[in-house]
Amino acid sequence: MACDWTGKTITCRAAVLWGPSEPLSMEEIEVDPPQKLEVRVKILFTSICHTDLGVWKGENSAMSVYPRILGHEASGVVESVGEGVKDLKRGDHVVPVCVGECGDCVYCTSSKTNICDKYRINAFRSTMINDGKTRFYTASARQPIYHFLSTSTFSEYTVLDSACVVKIQPSAPLNKICLLSCGVSTGVGAAWKTANVQEGSTVAVFGLGAVGLAAAEGARIRGASRIIGIDVNPDKFIKAKGMGVTDFVNPREQSIPVHEVIRSMTNGGVDYCFECVGNREVLREAFMSTHDGWGLCVVVGVHSSPELLMLHPMELFDGRRIVGTILGDIKPKSELPDMVEKYTNGFLKVDGLITHELPFEEINTAMKLLADGVSLRCVLSV
Amino acid sequence: MACDWTGKTITCRAAVLWGPSEPLSMEEIEVDPPQKLEVRVKILFTSICHTDLGVWKGENSAMSVYPRILGHEASGVVESVGEGVKDLKRGDHVVPVCVGECGDCVYCTSSKTNICDKYRINAFRSTMINDGKTRFYTASARQPIYHFLSTSTFSEYTVLDSACVVKIQPSAPLNKICLLSCGVSTGVGAAWKTANVQEGSTVAVFGLGAVGLAAAEGARIRGASRIIGIDVNPDKFIKAKGMGVTDFVNPREQSIPVHEVIRSMTNGGVDYCFECVGNREVLREAFMSTHDGWGLCVVVGVHSSPELLMLHPMELFDGRRIVGTILGDIKPKSELPDMVEKYTNGFLKVDGLITHELPFEEINTAMKLLADGVSLRCVLSV
Repeated sequence: MACDWTGKTITCRAAVLWGPSEPLSMEEIEVDPPQKLEVRVKILFTSICHTDLGVWKGENSAMSVYPRILGHEASGVVESVGEGVKDLKRGDHVVPVCVGECGDCVYCTSSKTNICDKYRINAFRSTMINDGKTRFYTASARQPIYHFLSTSTFSEYTVLDSACVVKIQPSAPLNKICLLSCGVSTGVGAAWKTANVQEGSTVAVFGLGAVGLAAAEGARIRGASRIIGIDVNPDKFIKAKGMGVTDFVNPREQSIPVHEVIRSMTNGGVDYCFECVGNREVLREAFMSTHDGWGLCVVVGVHSSPELLMLHPMELFDGRRIVGTILGDIKPKSELPDMVEKYTNGFLKVDGLITHELPFEEINTAMKLLADGVSLRCVLSV
Repeated sequence: MACDWTGKTITCRAAVLWGPSEPLSMEEIEVDPPQKLEVRVKILFTSICHTDLGVWKGENSAMSVYPRILGHEASGVVESVGEGVKDLKRGDHVVPVCVGECGDCVYCTSSKTNICDKYRINAFRSTMINDGKTRFYTASARQPIYHFLSTSTFSEYTVLDSACVVKIQPSAPLNKICLLSCGVSTGVGAAWKTANVQEGSTVAVFGLGAVGLAAAEGARIRGASRIIGIDVNPDKFIKAKGMGVTDFVNPREQSIPVHEVIRSMTNGGVDYCFECVGNREVLREAFMSTHDGWGLCVVVGVHSSPELLMLHPMELFDGRRIVGTILGDIKPKSELPDMVEKYTNGFLKVDGLITHELPFEEINTAMKLLADGVSLRCVLSV
């Protein structure tokens, strides 16, 4: 950032999606200056999360807006700020977050939620809140390119609402803590904040991707006595063994339902269960794997199927509970810096989630690694 | 109880159900002595709850066992105790409860649930746990008569597991506190224990029967700032006005869904909602009536429909929560005596729920009063 482009349009590279399941197209785009309460960030590292994959595939037609720049798990440096931005300045190290925090609304001032009235996560929004326009254009024809999850980090520069930009300590390694921008915070937060896992408790994690393993790490730090990992891909067990998971269940190797296996392993069921798959049959198994009377099932995975929860109202009378979590119930501006600190000082160990590192131009390889279940997280140097 | 029938069979009157929706037949029965860890109770007062009505109608064929003695909301005096019963003796004032408490199991020793491993509520059980036999027989032909909800209070004498008998203070009026044996404890407990209603919060109660009004009373005592009652029967509003309910919504008078009405009344939804109807469409409205971010929907009503919850997994991501409650999460032996004390000293006011009083032989009239929505509770003098 030798030159000062404040107030000017920046021309840079971005990976643009032109249609469902098409390869991302690396091309020159124009990034307009940030407007009121907006921030322009130079992205240095971005990883890829399953939510990007789902939208890339066009799983939900209402979210299918093209051309578009995906990406929401990243780290970078503030390039310039728009009018009214007080808490961020050029040069600050930051992580973008798809869950904003204005700090003033009825939600932000409540301790019970990380929803924000104005900046809550919205996968259907594809423009800036300020004026309903985009800040991205093709360099060739000045055609608008749409935003994604208020972040659009598959670009050398992006514009975000300042509510969606979290300042972090300069000593935090940007090439690692990009994972805390979404996946790790979601998993660890699900264990720490949503479930509030207690020492000595039993835990099951369905789906041993990065988010599931982050939930396991969160449970390990809390002193869970047993952490059961469930996945149909046995390759995931190798990585999980090094990350606090104590037992493994491959549903494909069982002759009885997984919840019966887990109940028999744990004398009636686990205290906490994290469903990190996004499949309703798996969610039912997860719910039924918890101990009646007090078991808590946390829905972490994104469920794109329009079908209802497979639960009967009377089943709630057995005392099992089910709750959802977005970004692990972490208020990003207020609480994410503390998690970054915990990572930086070695308390929270998630480096193992980074299985691949590639240059930005190999983003389509990185997408395939994740889609094929080969990578947990591939960090791209932007 | 001038005579001592300890160890002997007692011949007395009971209201026997011989088939679905048939009038209860008042007849002579024989009640065998209590066996190990059982108690025989002389029932003095019994009221009728909607669960009795549902089984009377034969709504669930798996619960249709005849002849049977229904009834589970009552009060009485211990007539005799079986071997091993330490905490109860002849002459003790008691209320029967369909949720037992052994005091020793993994559930009873947990603060998180009122389930009991051995004596949990079981609407499918129709005999004693001890030996799988009944203690009731027809006097004429010694034909077995089946039990219901471990209580069977529509009888002058009944036999219960001692885990299902709660000793209460002798000064408590038995003709009133029979309601605390189920309905009032369920409603008040749902507000106090399950939801833990906070001062100044907003509450909605769907279904203004006795249980719903008890939940409203529980919320009133906790200092809720607003308690919205929802019912399709406007007659219920008259009684509810005298019992802490501050606002009323009749869904039949609305042109928009009830949850939209409630959200507009409460700036986004209530903090706590109690569904006391047992209808899945109503339950969905109740859930959606809560404030996103922190709203809690408590399922109190019994849902006999086999259909699933009308909820999509992603709807949980808005931070609304849904939980079930049995007997208001109250541990009967440990915690019900305190609620009886709170009633007896005037802290808890539920006399208004007793709309009718009749002699035992008019039980069919009492059943009809409840079925027709005319009574809240009719107390029968047995």
